[in-house]
Amino acid sequence: MKTTRVFDALVQALQALPTIGPKTAMRLASHVLQHDRPAAQVLANSLLDALNSLHNCCRCNSFTESIDEYPVCTTCADSERDVTLLCVVDSIADQYAIEQSLGYKGLYFVLMGRLSPLDGMGVANIALRKLLARASQPQVKEVILANRFSADGEATAYIIAKHIKPLGKTVTRLSKGVPIGIELEYVDLPTLAHALRTRR
Amino acid sequence: MKTTRVFDALVQALQALPTIGPKTAMRLASHVLQHDRPAAQVLANSLLDALNSLHNCCRCNSFTESIDEYPVCTTCADSERDVTLLCVVDSIADQYAIEQSLGYKGLYFVLMGRLSPLDGMGVANIALRKLLARASQPQVKEVILANRFSADGEATAYIIAKHIKPLGKTVTRLSKGVPIGIELEYVDLPTLAHALRTRR
Repeated sequence: MKTTRVFDALVQALQALPTIGPKTAMRLASHVLQHDRPAAQVLANSLLDALNSLHNCCRCNSFTESIDEYPVCTTCADSERDVTLLCVVDSIADQYAIEQSLGYKGLYFVLMGRLSPLDGMGVANIALRKLLARASQPQVKEVILANRFSADGEATAYIIAKHIKPLGKTVTRLSKGVPIGIELEYVDLPTLAHALRTRR
Repeated sequence: MKTTRVFDALVQALQALPTIGPKTAMRLASHVLQHDRPAAQVLANSLLDALNSLHNCCRCNSFTESIDEYPVCTTCADSERDVTLLCVVDSIADQYAIEQSLGYKGLYFVLMGRLSPLDGMGVANIALRKLLARASQPQVKEVILANRFSADGEATAYIIAKHIKPLGKTVTRLSKGVPIGIELEYVDLPTLAHALRTRR
């Protein structure tokens, strides 16, 4: 079928997003062009805005609009935060989840990825060197590794811990166990076995 | 958490796409900004290109880059097509699937949607009036309804058939049955019952 070059280019561009395959891309493209052109316009503008004005925070590696030579995000600049705690997360989404729990008042470091050799994510693709520089600052006493409990996340946490322990900092990991409010029959078996083994 | 306004705006804009929720939107936004800025740039440009240059074909309602007053797409302009056949599909993706089957050489009409009152898609949101005008042209002898065999698709086909039959055109529907090459145990039960009832 001779579809149009411009339409094909849009379908192709949408497929560069993770988890979007060719069929989904075609559906998204048709939808916005036919039923929601204003949304397509807003999306294009938001992408250009974000590309123009977002940089990595020089302290936590998250995004900031600051235009300083050493840009600092609002969380890192917040003087009410406990500067002795540094929580390492894989992504902004994970940082956001921890913030919403209201259980943490320290600072963060966002790796923007996990070690995942099969997906081409090696030590060079996550901000390991930047994390080590940040963690070695004297005010940091404890580094909390909040990487996910997947094979990739555990490997990432292991590598980070190996590099940070020699700096003389306390290194901790989120506790594992049965989520609050879930019925036991829906808990996966490794988690249940772990929760039994580490009962208290 | 104080995320940045620009980042939040991008996450919001991505959520305007169907099937993209807040968590997926945040993941997509972080990914392109951190690991694939060129892809974000290409996507923004493709969206703007598509918005600027794609119009609905005045015959089949698909997209075309033609800048004529009455734009016609390349498929409708193809003189080797059988002009007596008009195949009605819900979407460009469905048209694309039929083209790939290499089993059809007629023309198309793309509704760009299905009747789906619960999702706010009524007769005004699909191109029913435009279809009726197109189908009533004298060269069209047969209208093939290739709407999906879902409740929405069947309802759409029913409404269209009700309007087109009085025009004196043959109205047909794709045949229903067991897909070729699938094991019977994986065929859904209504399809299997139908295939038994209409055995030949």
